[in-house]
Amino acid sequence: MKVDIHTLAAYLPHMAKPTDSKAKTLSAAARLMRQQGYHGTGLHDILATAGSPRGSLYFHFPRGKEEIGEAALALAGETVRLAIVQAAASSETAETFLARIARGMASELAKSGYKEGCPIATTALETSAQSDVLGAATRTAFQKWEAEIKRGLERFGLPSNEADLVATMALSQLEGAVLLARTYRSLTPMHRAEQALKLLLRDPRGR
Amino acid sequence: MKVDIHTLAAYLPHMAKPTDSKAKTLSAAARLMRQQGYHGTGLHDILATAGSPRGSLYFHFPRGKEEIGEAALALAGETVRLAIVQAAASSETAETFLARIARGMASELAKSGYKEGCPIATTALETSAQSDVLGAATRTAFQKWEAEIKRGLERFGLPSNEADLVATMALSQLEGAVLLARTYRSLTPMHRAEQALKLLLRDPRGR
Repeated sequence: MKVDIHTLAAYLPHMAKPTDSKAKTLSAAARLMRQQGYHGTGLHDILATAGSPRGSLYFHFPRGKEEIGEAALALAGETVRLAIVQAAASSETAETFLARIARGMASELAKSGYKEGCPIATTALETSAQSDVLGAATRTAFQKWEAEIKRGLERFGLPSNEADLVATMALSQLEGAVLLARTYRSLTPMHRAEQALKLLLRDPRGR
Repeated sequence: MKVDIHTLAAYLPHMAKPTDSKAKTLSAAARLMRQQGYHGTGLHDILATAGSPRGSLYFHFPRGKEEIGEAALALAGETVRLAIVQAAASSETAETFLARIARGMASELAKSGYKEGCPIATTALETSAQSDVLGAATRTAFQKWEAEIKRGLERFGLPSNEADLVATMALSQLEGAVLLARTYRSLTPMHRAEQALKLLLRDPRGR
C-alpha cells in the first residue's frame, strides 16, 4: 500500500537504533518471503538481495533465519496495518474504506507482475504446524489487521459486534481473493472481492 | 471432505493402472504439501511417509520432485472437486450447499489439529512466481473448484452470470477463512465465513 517497507524498517518500535544493514536485511527478507515463502528463501538470497555481508547477518540476528523471519513478518505486518489506518483516514464511508484496501492490494499485485500478494499468508501456511515463533508472528499480523479493520468500521458507525464480524469476513474475502488473483495472474477475483465487501456491509448480521 | 485421497489415487484418469507404491507416494506427497508446503517437503519425507523405496520414486516420477508435486496437486484438486459435487448432491438449497463445503473444510482442519487446511494454497503461493508446471497445476485446481461451485449454484436456480460471480466470491471467502482459521488455530473465521456466504447469496449483483 502506500508505506514504503524500507523506510518503515527504521521506525519500528522493537528496533532501537536500527543500522542500515539491519534494515536492508529485513526489507529484503520480507520481500523474498512475500514472493516465495519462508522455506524457499535462503540466507544467501537475503544477503544477495540486501547486499549485506554475511557477518552482519549473524551479528544482528544471532538466532539465525527464524529470527530474521520473525522480524521480517513484524515489519511486513506493520506496513499493512499502517496502510489500513491510511485507508480509513482517507475514506468517507465503510464501503470506500474496504474498497480502498482491496484496490491497494490489487495494485501492488499487478505492479509486481503478480509476484507480491499477501506478505504473511505464504509463511503462515508453511510454518503454522512447524514453528511456534513464526506461527505466532503470522497470527499477530493477521490479528492486528483484523483489529484495525474493525476500528475503521466502527469509525464509520458500525456497532462493535457488527464491526467485529465484518472485519473477519472482509479479511477472509481479501486474503482468499489475493490468493486466487495471484494464482490466476488476473485481477478478476480482486474486483469481485470489492463487490463482495459491499454485500457483507449491507446487513452483516443477516437480518 | 468425504472422499479418501488414498483410495481416489487409484481412480484418477491420468494414472492408468497405478501401482500401489505410486498411489502411496502421491497421497503422502499431497498430505505433506498440504501440511507444510512444497519447499518444506523433501523427497526423503515423502519416501518415509509413503514407506516406498527410493528406486520406485525415480521409476514412477523420472522428472523428480516437480513431477510428484504436479501429480499430488492434481490428486488433491480432484479430491476437493468431488467433495464439492457431493455437497451439491446432498443439499436442497444454494445456502446449504455452500454451508456444507465450509463445514467440510472446518471439520478437516479441526480433526487434523489445525494442520490440514487447503491442499493447494500453500504450494500456489510458494511456487506461482517460480514454477510454470506447479503454477499451472494450482491454477487448474482452483479453476475446477470455482467451476464446480458455479455448477452447483446453477443447479439451485442461480442465473449463470450470478452463479459465476458468487462462485468466485465464495471460493475467496472460504480460502481466506481457512487460512485465518489455521493460523489462529480457531474455527471462528470458518463460522463467520458460513454467515458471509449467506450474505453473498442474498443479492449477489448488489441491487
